[in-house]
Amino acid sequence: MSKLPNVTTSIFTVMSKMAAEHNAINLSQGFPNFPVDERLTDILARLSKENVHQYTPMAGYPPLMNKIAKLTLDSYKRTINPELELLVTAGATQGIFTSILALVKENDEVIILDPSYDSYESPVLLCKAKPIRVALNDDYTPNWERIEKACSAKTRMMIINNPHNPTGKILTENDFIQLKNLLEKYPDIIILSDEVYEYITFEEKHISAHTKDFLLDRCVMVSSFGKSFHITGWKIGYTIAPEHLMKEIKKVHQFLVFSVNSISQFAISEYLDAVDVNLLGKFYQEKRDYFQKLLQNSRFELKPCEGTYFQVASYSNISDEDDVSFCKNLILNHGVAAIPISTFYSDHKDQHLIRFCFAKDNFTLESAAKKLSEI
Amino acid sequence: MSKLPNVTTSIFTVMSKMAAEHNAINLSQGFPNFPVDERLTDILARLSKENVHQYTPMAGYPPLMNKIAKLTLDSYKRTINPELELLVTAGATQGIFTSILALVKENDEVIILDPSYDSYESPVLLCKAKPIRVALNDDYTPNWERIEKACSAKTRMMIINNPHNPTGKILTENDFIQLKNLLEKYPDIIILSDEVYEYITFEEKHISAHTKDFLLDRCVMVSSFGKSFHITGWKIGYTIAPEHLMKEIKKVHQFLVFSVNSISQFAISEYLDAVDVNLLGKFYQEKRDYFQKLLQNSRFELKPCEGTYFQVASYSNISDEDDVSFCKNLILNHGVAAIPISTFYSDHKDQHLIRFCFAKDNFTLESAAKKLSEI
Ligand SMILES: CSCCC(=O)C(=O)O
Ligand SMILES: CSCCC(=O)C(=O)O
Repeated sequence: MSKLPNVTTSIFTVMSKMAAEHNAINLSQGFPNFPVDERLTDILARLSKENVHQYTPMAGYPPLMNKIAKLTLDSYKRTINPELELLVTAGATQGIFTSILALVKENDEVIILDPSYDSYESPVLLCKAKPIRVALNDDYTPNWERIEKACSAKTRMMIINNPHNPTGKILTENDFIQLKNLLEKYPDIIILSDEVYEYITFEEKHISAHTKDFLLDRCVMVSSFGKSFHITGWKIGYTIAPEHLMKEIKKVHQFLVFSVNSISQFAISEYLDAVDVNLLGKFYQEKRDYFQKLLQNSRFELKPCEGTYFQVASYSNISDEDDVSFCKNLILNHGVAAIPISTFYSDHKDQHLIRFCFAKDNFTLESAAKKLSEI
Repeated sequence: MSKLPNVTTSIFTVMSKMAAEHNAINLSQGFPNFPVDERLTDILARLSKENVHQYTPMAGYPPLMNKIAKLTLDSYKRTINPELELLVTAGATQGIFTSILALVKENDEVIILDPSYDSYESPVLLCKAKPIRVALNDDYTPNWERIEKACSAKTRMMIINNPHNPTGKILTENDFIQLKNLLEKYPDIIILSDEVYEYITFEEKHISAHTKDFLLDRCVMVSSFGKSFHITGWKIGYTIAPEHLMKEIKKVHQFLVFSVNSISQFAISEYLDAVDVNLLGKFYQEKRDYFQKLLQNSRFELKPCEGTYFQVASYSNISDEDDVSFCKNLILNHGVAAIPISTFYSDHKDQHLIRFCFAKDNFTLESAAKKLSEI
């Protein structure tokens, strides 16, 4: 008897594998295909020959932790105490899993928006807690009325993802006002805020949950260098939480992984002195605009994209297939891989929507767009 | 209310930190202080400039998985199917945590020997299962009679650690015969075998649990390159299990960490073609012998050490303090850090025993031994 009876191979694995097998252009799983900043790979190459190969301390390599605190101050004017409020994790996924495992207990309820990224529900189930899915509005904004209706004395946590994968939606000041009003009624709810695309927003600036005073003592913010530095394979993320929550998260972390890849931590720590994360939004905004322009004469209908490196598109003008079949045939017949949006819905509802990742070099975007425009 | 109310800062963290603060020679936490093989760091430096920075597949980088299968065949004449029976993890700790979380359910019982390494109990508690501690014999061999008495229909798992941290004991053919007899009566018990020191044995050869026919369908073997390649900071381990168990382990892994540091996986994969793991036992045997010789005129009484890079020593001739106080004073007064053995006992029973790590260059061993011999 499985503890996760409904889990199957993740769609990201399925689609990336199918793309490779059929030599398709892979716009499915979210990862960049362009070279990593040479400054970072130079640092890594140099450090390889230095004394960077043994355990770092459990919560992270201290100089890296100080740099993350500085980044947080520079980006958000938010001061954190790296020793008490910060944890370096093996990617954001480990931060999310560890936080849920540490903080959610049997029979607790956890609010998860619908659609949402696929990695929130399983850790909740492993805690024998109950995921409560609340549908976003049709424009993918949170429906605060529905969220409030879903809250009760049993609610322990609400998971938000901002900027939002797969829809590219970001939360507004008004959303945080609504959240504040809600939380005043529920003093025990913790917000787990997945902000891995924090530096990838376009017209509007990202609002990080852990900068809001009303959230300071109840917000677990999770992020990752994978997205910010185009190094999804390195699996180095970080979690920021108030001391009383971080204490519990660290207890689980200690036994879950103990510490995190040393070389990568040393390299990122140095690189943080050189890089300007504020250029990232502009970089991806240009990619988004270029990809949208390339597809403007196609039969795909593109949805708004405020952040992340994902573009949602409707294929209603093209086919009546469900989105999973459409994606499979898109690989087989047109050589482009995408992700069916139904994946992100708890009921797998098909809306003839798919997600493209535009974190690709221009040649790849052009080649893909050419194929997509011929459909 | 904490889910792990009894967890405090790990003794390895405490002692390594205290050693650093007082500039003591750190023979506490287990990690080598000599340079990593240049062939490995050369590979890493070269690969840094290549296309190795994005997600590897969920279960691991396929060429590395094939090499691990080859290593297993070469070392143990055991054929595994890397696609179905193997998982690359963020260190052995993550392999252990993930396996327990995937396979142990509420109210299950898990047999953990006493003393044992400190990372088995917490994951069991997080599953709301019950750790059942069974004392080893005085010579640290398993007491199969006591183990059998502790087994019942509720027993889901037994955790073994071979070679054994902290005692350096290894399991014999006779132990496996006893285990076989026991398991015949309990068809549902899974063996979780922590073998991170598999290549660090001395007079006797290591017997890997997953080479025993009677364990093939019920053994989860966990190991790590951290110990075998002197790279404890890299956090790359692997788990081998039969398909029906591995399926469940992978489901948890997918949400716990998704995938593992890419660069390190690429580098280890290449290095496995160059390195001969069978030289490791001899290398550490020389260190053990040298360290023992250096201490032969000290007042410490050294216990036998069959494997691992740990030496247990009694200080009964020196002091009446409990072992935690003795270790703290050893740092403060004599500039050497060790680990109190009481840490590894569920009841923290003091026996005037401490553990030294001898994975150190000869100069460090000499300097430490000089200080220890002056006590
Ligand atoms: C961890 S694989 C999925 C990568 C990703 O974040 C996405 O494609 O949504
Ligand atoms: C993960 S820190 C502990 C290292 C170790 O294996 C030991 O010292 O026993």
